[in-house]
Amino acid sequence: MKSFRKELYFNISTRRGFINITPQVEQALAESGITEGLVLVNAMNITASVFINDDESGLHVDMEKWLEKLAPEKPYSQYAHNGYEDNADAHLKRSVMGREAVVAITEGKLDFGTWEQIFYGEFDGKRKKYVLVKIIGE
Amino acid sequence: MKSFRKELYFNISTRRGFINITPQVEQALAESGITEGLVLVNAMNITASVFINDDESGLHVDMEKWLEKLAPEKPYSQYAHNGYEDNADAHLKRSVMGREAVVAITEGKLDFGTWEQIFYGEFDGKRKKYVLVKIIGE
Amino acid sequence: MKSFRKELYFNISTRRGFINITPQVEQALAESGITEGLVLVNAMNITASVFINDDESGLHVDMEKWLEKLAPEKPYSQYAHNGYEDNADAHLKRSVMGREAVVAITEGKLDFGTWEQIFYGEFDGKRKKYVLVKIIGE
Repeated sequence: MKSFRKELYFNISTRRGFINITPQVEQALAESGITEGLVLVNAMNITASVFINDDESGLHVDMEKWLEKLAPEKPYSQYAHNGYEDNADAHLKRSVMGREAVVAITEGKLDFGTWEQIFYGEFDGKRKKYVLVKIIGE
Repeated sequence: MKSFRKELYFNISTRRGFINITPQVEQALAESGITEGLVLVNAMNITASVFINDDESGLHVDMEKWLEKLAPEKPYSQYAHNGYEDNADAHLKRSVMGREAVVAITEGKLDFGTWEQIFYGEFDGKRKKYVLVKIIGE
Repeated sequence: MKSFRKELYFNISTRRGFINITPQVEQALAESGITEGLVLVNAMNITASVFINDDESGLHVDMEKWLEKLAPEKPYSQYAHNGYEDNADAHLKRSVMGREAVVAITEGKLDFGTWEQIFYGEFDGKRKKYVLVKIIGE
């Protein structure tokens, strides 16, 4: 069994945003030399997500609006977590969208459906954060 | 390390529905000959889910009603994604229910709790869609 | 490839609660002797979750309140699942928080970001329930 590990860094200038990180994960896979196995892609910060969905800008607008409805950022005082911090909503939004994606590797490629793309979801940005790519296989 | 791959196809006649796919995953596991490892089961379409819960028809009624409350299908015009398409709600419902399940394989079987069953959750049906089963182990 | 399996048992005296199980997962990892690979940690009961977030008591208060808003326990009669049972809300809460976490193992340790901790989320307690830890690697 072979294993490979890589960190991907992000520093988004807004509080929230979605970035398609499929090219970076494909690059890590190429570097690993692994052709059959699994890749785990997970946020290393607990106010961010890794998820798989569509790379369509209208959908990202809908997701932002929907997550704000499910777990509003403001008023900050509605959350017990917010005292020294103001990011309780980011922890909740990340709970909806998930921490990680596990993707099959087949014949050296991400074994994806037609429209699947991997996203980094930032819910408390304006600072350096990161994602782990861990690949195991042969 | 051994690996095994199989696609499962679905064509649900309604927009939404839940199908217990545990027998198909068990069949794939038997075909693989793998007795220790992990199986990844994921939707290959981004308007569908794979998740693990109870095979109880009342609960499925509750889930349908609950997901419609969290991310209503209509009016279609409430979503920026809906122009050529009308399925923004399906992308959001799938975000709640998740894309994938990872299940342990022990002594040649799905290592499950008593009531665990694997479901395919369709949120934009009436057409052919599919699920990937990828097994790695020995 | 090596594999290792361990069950963790819980009996929470309240209906709902969150327990940090990171030490137990680290203990299982040490027992396994595996230094490179993946660990799957999943609830074996379908009214409970395993998830990764912050070990901050204010956040846990926020999560409890938020999940009760998204999928209220009462009135029990609002759910078709509730007849012999009263735990439909627990199945829904678990759907939001997720069944499982997959964590990378690197150099014999959980490959975690600074604040990542693994939690057992109980949504229908007052009885014995359990979590599976399955580790594969070398």
